[in-house]
Amino acid sequence: MAKASKTAKVLIGATAFGASFFDPDIRWRTQFSAPDPFVVVVHSGKTVLFVSELEYERAKKQARADEVLLIEKLREEFGLPKMAPASAWLPLYLKREGIDTLEVSPFYDTVLKLSKDFDMSIPKGPLFPERAVKTRDEIGNIKKVRDATEEVLDMVFRAIRGMDIYEGKIFDPKGVIGKKDDFLTAEVLRSFMNREFISRDCFCPDTIIASGNQAVDPHCIGFGPLCANVPIVFDVFPRSTDNLYWYDTTRTVVKGILRPEALALYDMVKAGQSLGLTMIKEGANGKDIHLAIDGMFVSAGYKTGFQKAVMDGKEVMMMQGFFHGTGHGVGVDIHESPRISWVDDTLRENMVVTCEPGLYYWGIGGVRIEDTVVVTKNGYNNLSRYTRELLEL
Amino acid sequence: MAKASKTAKVLIGATAFGASFFDPDIRWRTQFSAPDPFVVVVHSGKTVLFVSELEYERAKKQARADEVLLIEKLREEFGLPKMAPASAWLPLYLKREGIDTLEVSPFYDTVLKLSKDFDMSIPKGPLFPERAVKTRDEIGNIKKVRDATEEVLDMVFRAIRGMDIYEGKIFDPKGVIGKKDDFLTAEVLRSFMNREFISRDCFCPDTIIASGNQAVDPHCIGFGPLCANVPIVFDVFPRSTDNLYWYDTTRTVVKGILRPEALALYDMVKAGQSLGLTMIKEGANGKDIHLAIDGMFVSAGYKTGFQKAVMDGKEVMMMQGFFHGTGHGVGVDIHESPRISWVDDTLRENMVVTCEPGLYYWGIGGVRIEDTVVVTKNGYNNLSRYTRELLEL
Repeated sequence: MAKASKTAKVLIGATAFGASFFDPDIRWRTQFSAPDPFVVVVHSGKTVLFVSELEYERAKKQARADEVLLIEKLREEFGLPKMAPASAWLPLYLKREGIDTLEVSPFYDTVLKLSKDFDMSIPKGPLFPERAVKTRDEIGNIKKVRDATEEVLDMVFRAIRGMDIYEGKIFDPKGVIGKKDDFLTAEVLRSFMNREFISRDCFCPDTIIASGNQAVDPHCIGFGPLCANVPIVFDVFPRSTDNLYWYDTTRTVVKGILRPEALALYDMVKAGQSLGLTMIKEGANGKDIHLAIDGMFVSAGYKTGFQKAVMDGKEVMMMQGFFHGTGHGVGVDIHESPRISWVDDTLRENMVVTCEPGLYYWGIGGVRIEDTVVVTKNGYNNLSRYTRELLEL
Repeated sequence: MAKASKTAKVLIGATAFGASFFDPDIRWRTQFSAPDPFVVVVHSGKTVLFVSELEYERAKKQARADEVLLIEKLREEFGLPKMAPASAWLPLYLKREGIDTLEVSPFYDTVLKLSKDFDMSIPKGPLFPERAVKTRDEIGNIKKVRDATEEVLDMVFRAIRGMDIYEGKIFDPKGVIGKKDDFLTAEVLRSFMNREFISRDCFCPDTIIASGNQAVDPHCIGFGPLCANVPIVFDVFPRSTDNLYWYDTTRTVVKGILRPEALALYDMVKAGQSLGLTMIKEGANGKDIHLAIDGMFVSAGYKTGFQKAVMDGKEVMMMQGFFHGTGHGVGVDIHESPRISWVDDTLRENMVVTCEPGLYYWGIGGVRIEDTVVVTKNGYNNLSRYTRELLEL
């Protein structure tokens, strides 16, 4: 008796505007926006998303999917290590579901056909490791985007300083950025910033402007009126439309004053970032840096993991603490080698990396401070000239 | 005696801003901008680009590569049919070069590992054929981008109408778009248009604004002062930063008046596009439409192929005539299924496709007219409301 074959479509790609390896099929099917590649499996009439903790809550709310699975949980179920890649957990999932036949995007056609006739090897690291070490020209490209970013941030922070607080939200009486006598929203501000970036030959569609609890999801780009007296995260990562290089910086600011526990959160993240920066130099291991910051946070009582939060009157468990990597390379891709995270990766002179620890707690808010720096023989050259002191606007 | 292994790195991807399957490694290595995926092989200390006729001349000039090979020529050399894909000609090239080991991007890791344990099939067409047929919402998304496009084009054409001609170039005495008392350049105009698009929540970094001989290369985005009394191609394809859908239109205009042979070229392309449009309907085969237009052009004496051109005082052979497809689907990707080209592809109701024949001759210039239309049961619904008559600005 012939066994019936069970087929799944398997897709891998990112879906945010301008993401590398943007997959239009995934975008179309899920309508979900994520800057880094994730996995989608379509089988048995359902669309299943596989995302990390960073995207999980957002995907459950926003993605057009029948099921959203947490990769971290799958790894645990299958007894795999913390950072095991999709090539480790995905075959186990597919076998568990009784799937034996896969369909993939025609984009993979050539590589799959080549794999039949040639010895095929995939480097453990990047295909061009030398890409991570930047030339003087490349650093110049990144600096041009940095200049645009700091001009636009200056303009925005100055404008907010001139605005009022009304009903706990930022109010724009003169209509400097939005409409006259209206609340300042993340959408209006993002659009304003993008116009300013375009005037400087940069493009920055996905600027994160998230206040209060919105920022507890580090990939939530923010929506609606911006709240006063709570941290507002500005994560700004524009790309030159001319040379296509990126820059990446984050500042957390407040309109009004912060409550003591939010202020303490800010100081903690700033201390964590300072620790990270002091460890950056030729030869340093990204994992050591990340774990040192994580350790500092834990010692001070800032724990990471699923923790209670009261949402819409109900108690739920959600990921809180410091649950993303400390940094990543920046170049012609926004997230590239090297990583400063849970995996070993050695810093080399003239690599350009971010240092961006963050802490996120429901009820207090999110704080992230991010600089982009050039690694030197004995330390780093900070491209970000913006103050790391809390800006009270 | 052990045979020495010869290794090549093989890369496939696109490199223009916002292209699907953007490959940062290819961009970094070649510094070449192309909207559609192409192939790069790095072996024996050299970087080899494989591009179609559409990118060939530009790649030879602009790409940081040791060799640029024309795919059409390789197909001929290997006795393959006209449209044979990379999976057909690339293995033959690699074997001819004595290569037996390949390295590919870590991005392919998961799919390659899955191919070892599962029956892997690649659909002949797209992974989700249903994606090509648009819903009412999707057509609404495209229409929003259409509205922005026509507003911006109106604004630009009106501005150019008010400008002068000086030394055969467009001169902007009042500085309406560029600097006062200066020539209007493609770069300045592109940047102006992009700011207007961003104000309408669209992004359009690679607008083609090419006058005279520049337009003979259909993917040259245009540079320097715009010439008067010759055709100027405006190929505008913005994407919504909100819903990520695209729109695509091309108009060929003139500042001043066209010489008779350029006017004849315009009329010919307009007739070709009209023929294409009348053939678009549910059930039509894209190949029939493309070949009908091509046949019309050839009958009228407009031949396609490598033809003589005098460039910098030297006689060279270059691709001229009608050497790109007639149209393509438009949606969450700028070039998607179905194709109206040399391959069989059936049009279905509610597909959204472009119809964009063009003719390109060195010394006369380039003319392309492009509408984006919705396929209906008995014809089409033209989303482009812009006149197809020659605009003499």
